[in-house]
Amino acid sequence: MKLTGQAFIGATRVAGQGDALQAIDPANNTPLDPVYASNQTRDVDRACELAQQAFRPYRKTDSETRARFLETIAENILELGDALIERAMAETGLPRPRLEGERGRTVNQLKLFAEVLRKGLWLGIEHDPALGERTPPRPDLRSRNIPVGPVVVFGASNFPLAFSVAGGDTASALAAGCPVIVKAHPAHPGTSELVGQALQRAVQQCDLDEGVFSMLFDAGHNVGAALVAHPAIKAVGFTGSRKGGTALMAIAAARPEPIPVYAEMSSINPLFLLTDALEADPEALAEQYVDSLQMGAGQFCTNPGLLIARTGPALDRFITRATEKLQGSQGQTMLTPGIAQAYNSGLTSLAEQPGVELIARAPDVQSPNQCQSSLLGTGAEQFLAQPELQSEVFGSAALLVQCDSDAQMLAIAEGLEGQLTAGLHLTDQTDSALAAELIDRLETKAGRLLINGFPTGVEVCSAMVHGGPYPATSDGRTTSVGTRAIDRFLRPVCYQNFPEALLPLELRGV
Amino acid sequence: MKLTGQAFIGATRVAGQGDALQAIDPANNTPLDPVYASNQTRDVDRACELAQQAFRPYRKTDSETRARFLETIAENILELGDALIERAMAETGLPRPRLEGERGRTVNQLKLFAEVLRKGLWLGIEHDPALGERTPPRPDLRSRNIPVGPVVVFGASNFPLAFSVAGGDTASALAAGCPVIVKAHPAHPGTSELVGQALQRAVQQCDLDEGVFSMLFDAGHNVGAALVAHPAIKAVGFTGSRKGGTALMAIAAARPEPIPVYAEMSSINPLFLLTDALEADPEALAEQYVDSLQMGAGQFCTNPGLLIARTGPALDRFITRATEKLQGSQGQTMLTPGIAQAYNSGLTSLAEQPGVELIARAPDVQSPNQCQSSLLGTGAEQFLAQPELQSEVFGSAALLVQCDSDAQMLAIAEGLEGQLTAGLHLTDQTDSALAAELIDRLETKAGRLLINGFPTGVEVCSAMVHGGPYPATSDGRTTSVGTRAIDRFLRPVCYQNFPEALLPLELRGV
Repeated sequence: MKLTGQAFIGATRVAGQGDALQAIDPANNTPLDPVYASNQTRDVDRACELAQQAFRPYRKTDSETRARFLETIAENILELGDALIERAMAETGLPRPRLEGERGRTVNQLKLFAEVLRKGLWLGIEHDPALGERTPPRPDLRSRNIPVGPVVVFGASNFPLAFSVAGGDTASALAAGCPVIVKAHPAHPGTSELVGQALQRAVQQCDLDEGVFSMLFDAGHNVGAALVAHPAIKAVGFTGSRKGGTALMAIAAARPEPIPVYAEMSSINPLFLLTDALEADPEALAEQYVDSLQMGAGQFCTNPGLLIARTGPALDRFITRATEKLQGSQGQTMLTPGIAQAYNSGLTSLAEQPGVELIARAPDVQSPNQCQSSLLGTGAEQFLAQPELQSEVFGSAALLVQCDSDAQMLAIAEGLEGQLTAGLHLTDQTDSALAAELIDRLETKAGRLLINGFPTGVEVCSAMVHGGPYPATSDGRTTSVGTRAIDRFLRPVCYQNFPEALLPLELRGV
Repeated sequence: MKLTGQAFIGATRVAGQGDALQAIDPANNTPLDPVYASNQTRDVDRACELAQQAFRPYRKTDSETRARFLETIAENILELGDALIERAMAETGLPRPRLEGERGRTVNQLKLFAEVLRKGLWLGIEHDPALGERTPPRPDLRSRNIPVGPVVVFGASNFPLAFSVAGGDTASALAAGCPVIVKAHPAHPGTSELVGQALQRAVQQCDLDEGVFSMLFDAGHNVGAALVAHPAIKAVGFTGSRKGGTALMAIAAARPEPIPVYAEMSSINPLFLLTDALEADPEALAEQYVDSLQMGAGQFCTNPGLLIARTGPALDRFITRATEKLQGSQGQTMLTPGIAQAYNSGLTSLAEQPGVELIARAPDVQSPNQCQSSLLGTGAEQFLAQPELQSEVFGSAALLVQCDSDAQMLAIAEGLEGQLTAGLHLTDQTDSALAAELIDRLETKAGRLLINGFPTGVEVCSAMVHGGPYPATSDGRTTSVGTRAIDRFLRPVCYQNFPEALLPLELRGV
């Protein structure tokens, strides 16, 4: 399929009339055709109007219809073939195997929600039968979940497939029965357009109302802000920076009718290396750790950006091996020139904090926009005294906090901001009281706790929680990955004393 | 038990040092002893500190311990005996049978959440076992819900027992494992103190940490605002006015760490009388309707404040009978002088809107603070043109919108704000297409839909939804009545690759 540079408004393609935007290959700073144009208020209004019109029929489609729709999107994405992978590689600098893997994940997410729909648990059906003899009599009461209404999804830069146009937010919102308007991420407009074509075609193939899917472009923030403020919109899905997420939260809270924003924002994913685990094989742990830190140039929400360990010979050996591995590593192209700049300035700013030192750094980069992986160090007292040391540097950067006591490790756990994940490395010999005390604190700070693993790699399944207390996300009661992500776009409705013929089909005969 | 006028801060009783507040018997405007005093910032800080301290042990108590705690609160409330009912009657003007019924409901709510705890579904347990052979291998992933943290509950004026100190919000938050700080409603401080004693004693009897329960008083808004802003607080439960609820939402959204506010605010609970149902027996329908309208002087969130029907002889007969019944009714004392004044001014303001006329009114009142039940009327065009006609007048007041066509009824359904409930009266002969069209629109507007009934009377059960889109509540994804109310105070946590000994008990061997 050809790239046209046009937005998707229902079944039509519309050229924006605003500021130009164009993808840049971050590996060589070359602009990539075509040129896109920012959409304007009238396009926002039209897309929202179509989404509102589509909501009535779409929310009433049965589970099987929506499941087939999700599967059709998945098939259409696969049919895009290598053109999708090549465009995504050019726009993001991510390597082929990563993008092929991410495409698989995207397709599997769509299929997972098809399965969720067929199983029907998402409906949350409850039934309290009438008790006519009771005083006062109890009426027949049944309830089920229904979709909240049209949803805006912001494409994320770091997962151009799995958290972008047809990613987890879109898949779960469409599964719930909500029309979706995507605000395409400006860093990968071509990838977005290809997936948008797959989605728009699936709407037609499944004979759905055209307003079920639209997608707009913007070089700036106007379109996103206007979408979140539009009265037709009932919820927002966002993955990105804390600054971006909190800006959307403020717009949503200031509406005449406030709406929920599900923003997945920032996390430094602390890992506590308990001394037994460190002593067991410090070199192996260092290698595994640096692998996780460097995966995807560290451009993951779950990048392990904070290490906490006790000083001693084992930690020294860990540092030595991590340093060797970092110094022997190659540069990796980051997603955009802007992200590479932000990485460098974030790292400089962190290194300039009192008591922070550079421990090790990858060799000087050879190409534009590459990430020079870095490990910094500080002491527990400095870390506890300076909340700004918890700021995320997006990319392959980590801060090692060296502790003199278990009490300091516990104090660090206690003082953490909300996180997506928190981990412990331990052995059978580890002091189980210390582990339990750490877990006790980390449970209240993170959405996912992991033992002897690394946070990168987020499984898409029922038990997954990709969420966590603010500022990891805007709403720690939810997850943006896994089957429970659909719950974000549902609300319950109770039906009292309904004759069978007027009940929704799902509630008849239950 | 004696009333002391003191607040509850953990296990201690503390006299406030701020402005005085005193209950007033609304039946005769007599102040009721003792005099209470507003708490101050240091009391807020101390209660929050204790709640935070209590959270760690309390959240780890097992389901059985918390179930017994809730049952002990229920027993202690019953042990207060007639003193509680008499004090509540004096403070609220509500009649004895209503308050005895409400006490039963309060006790049953506590017992219901004890049952919810024992059944264990609230834990939301999921398990995706390890797939070691897969590439990449899947780790073992288990998840469960944990409590969010200390919760602030605002006592409601209109349910001095069932939505106040030990009401639905408190019961569900305590069940979830959250310590609770109650901001007592200033209209019934004595009732609050009695129930507070029952709660404080239950904390001691069950050997729980003292910070599990505190209760503060305030003549104004400072204590409530400071509680919602306090960093230890993680969620808020509120039942009251739209002005109060939105003020709390704004405070919560502006915190460095925003928190959810579950505010149940305003609803006019539209009832659509379809012509068949009206024609079947207009007089009987009018009598049942006026009974619902006058129940509790209309001081319910579910008061049926909006009637929609087609003009014609049947509606004329309905109006005639409703008028007779209203004119033959007696005044009922409202909860407070302030509520009675607001009722009168709200009614005056509604009656002064263009195109609104007074249809019928109860006889002039004979005692202070009585509600003079009123039925007003307007046309569909006027209603559709004036959004302010949807404003709630808290008390026994209703607006009848007379329509000339089914299309107007559908337009009214379409234009409604979010509601707690919406109802239809119909018969087997009713045009089923019209009913389906109305239901289709009302489903997106309300939390509970009812056929051939009246919204007053909210069953406490699993299928109940006492919620609905804004402005009925701040969060239409939730309910404040029924078993699902506990979900408001929970968030999921995932445990990856945990050895059995470190897993929470509930997740072992699942």
